[in-house]
Amino acid sequence: MSDPRKHDITRRRFLAKAGQGLVAAKAVGALTATAAAQTVPEPPGKKLGWAIVGLGNLAINQILPAFARCEKSKVVAFVSGTPEKARKLALRYGVEARNIYNYQTYDRLQDNPQVDVVYIVLPNGMHAEYTIRAHKAGKHVLSEKPMANTPADCQAMIDAARTANRKLMVAYRCRYEPFNQEMIRMAREQELGPVKVVVADHGFNIGDPKQWRLKKDLAGGGALMDIGIYGLQAARYVTGEEPVELAAMSYTTPGDERFREVEETINFQLRFPSGALANCTSSYGYAGQNRYRVIATKGWFELEPATSYSGLRMRVRRGNALEERTLPVRDHFALEMDHLSECVLDGKEPLTPGEEGLRDLTLMTAIYEAARTGKTLKV
Amino acid sequence: MSDPRKHDITRRRFLAKAGQGLVAAKAVGALTATAAAQTVPEPPGKKLGWAIVGLGNLAINQILPAFARCEKSKVVAFVSGTPEKARKLALRYGVEARNIYNYQTYDRLQDNPQVDVVYIVLPNGMHAEYTIRAHKAGKHVLSEKPMANTPADCQAMIDAARTANRKLMVAYRCRYEPFNQEMIRMAREQELGPVKVVVADHGFNIGDPKQWRLKKDLAGGGALMDIGIYGLQAARYVTGEEPVELAAMSYTTPGDERFREVEETINFQLRFPSGALANCTSSYGYAGQNRYRVIATKGWFELEPATSYSGLRMRVRRGNALEERTLPVRDHFALEMDHLSECVLDGKEPLTPGEEGLRDLTLMTAIYEAARTGKTLKV
Repeated sequence: MSDPRKHDITRRRFLAKAGQGLVAAKAVGALTATAAAQTVPEPPGKKLGWAIVGLGNLAINQILPAFARCEKSKVVAFVSGTPEKARKLALRYGVEARNIYNYQTYDRLQDNPQVDVVYIVLPNGMHAEYTIRAHKAGKHVLSEKPMANTPADCQAMIDAARTANRKLMVAYRCRYEPFNQEMIRMAREQELGPVKVVVADHGFNIGDPKQWRLKKDLAGGGALMDIGIYGLQAARYVTGEEPVELAAMSYTTPGDERFREVEETINFQLRFPSGALANCTSSYGYAGQNRYRVIATKGWFELEPATSYSGLRMRVRRGNALEERTLPVRDHFALEMDHLSECVLDGKEPLTPGEEGLRDLTLMTAIYEAARTGKTLKV
Repeated sequence: MSDPRKHDITRRRFLAKAGQGLVAAKAVGALTATAAAQTVPEPPGKKLGWAIVGLGNLAINQILPAFARCEKSKVVAFVSGTPEKARKLALRYGVEARNIYNYQTYDRLQDNPQVDVVYIVLPNGMHAEYTIRAHKAGKHVLSEKPMANTPADCQAMIDAARTANRKLMVAYRCRYEPFNQEMIRMAREQELGPVKVVVADHGFNIGDPKQWRLKKDLAGGGALMDIGIYGLQAARYVTGEEPVELAAMSYTTPGDERFREVEETINFQLRFPSGALANCTSSYGYAGQNRYRVIATKGWFELEPATSYSGLRMRVRRGNALEERTLPVRDHFALEMDHLSECVLDGKEPLTPGEEGLRDLTLMTAIYEAARTGKTLKV
């Protein structure tokens, strides 16, 4: 969990002080503190070129600014149906005008050697098609979550990556940032004993009834697909196990115009082979929830918020002591993009490959079935 | 929620200051603060006589000290199988030696006009028998929770109370104290909009494998009966509704000597007629949990701890503001005992009569069945 940049600062301070002697130590302390704040990063090594497909809020406010924090990834191309938006962003981020594509010219990416990786930031129902076309164009792909609307679509994406011999990764950014990684470490190392129960609540009171998240064909489903997936992921990555049984209960307010096509609330229970259980809620109808707690035999640890882009907070309860644990704050998107670039450069498999996305879709499909039938399902 | 004693203090201070003039205000302030701290309570009106049946930890550490805070209840008799313990406690609490009973002489309570109410603090499996015998002796009864091991036993207790024309109340102390009452008020008045989901976690890592809580015939069940009942109660009293559907998932560690007869962990889901859902966990195997959160459309409110004898904490989230709400700290046991005394004196029905205990037993029986069959049950 240590931040290498922090160690670097410490080393520089030490060298500066050692060179100037102890007499001037106090003044030097002030000077070197300034120098440390100004530490100039090394020039990067090779950076892979990324194309961003879909210039919505997530791309504009999170993904594009994150490239400034990347060591191995740079943005070189855009794919957008709105030329004016793409042109403005291209000027801001130094993307060449000839590297702006639209959905008609998308397949021409295959003729652009500047583009190594395509990041699919489209509505869920479009992930499969644009991932498969990117692979056919010979590109590596990072797809936003959920990976697709159905397990069959996920499988087709995995097959396309294999045929093209290219990397396919799902953008589960929480797996790449320090707070969730510390939760995983504590659980797996049984720092507070074996994990008995994971509880998770994720959702928000969704607004505009016309947005794509509320259309079945574009979103694949409602709260579960978009936000409940975080609780499902957390239960899986914290335990390091796959569920063997699940149950669910769902509710959608009759007549609420937002929920004509997708569910409002769905709560689900999971059983893992070790005996650990999970109890999760997920809703588009309740006020913002974003937390999970891991309850072990000797204490508990939790994140709240757990999956926000920033501002995560961790609390640990051990006996009678309640501690807030401070961890390095890192840009989730920079970390996940650099992870994929590194996997491409080094020929490694991503931590969250297509198969990981497929597992979640298979489980979410079963959760919907359990809610519909009122039966606990073995999976 | 206001504390009448607080208003009284304020009134006294004002009168004292007004009488002595502004010149001496500062000195008077100090004096009247002392006077306020010494406010002598009015002599009580009629107090009913209580017999405590079962002198275990709960009676010794919580119930007996609580009589000092009661306005309408006094302890006048003990029933215990350990004469030495009863004798010591009688000396401490001023109980007459002739008012010490054992389980052989229990029915003689009917000849003791000093005893109006009998408080059953025995293991769950003994509540029914000793409640019914107390009613036959013409006494009113407060029974600890859970009311009994089975719905049939609850019904027999209710019938005995009706036949004897005496009050029967279940000791759901959280219904009588300010924090849980404020949660109920906020939910019912929809202060943050309609309630969508209630989540609750209750349990602890149980110790001594020989204790009665782990014996099926004495406890009726495991974590659910003892501690999960708090989450079930909270979901019901916060919404003010009765569940119409429930599902559950249970796990017990094989070979753990504590859980030869009762379950370790049981998580359950509830559906209410309004569409509100509850997601609850309950365990004898995980580290102490004691909380519930009510998630409405415009914010959430929670207690953690929610059901401890003291030290409850309430947090309210409204938009971006997180507030800790401070409420009067009151003795839960004094409040519930005085409530029953008042009902007896005024001929009113208790807030938590036998029928309330029966509802929980019926629901818990269904939760066990849902866990066993893996089916969502309509109730």
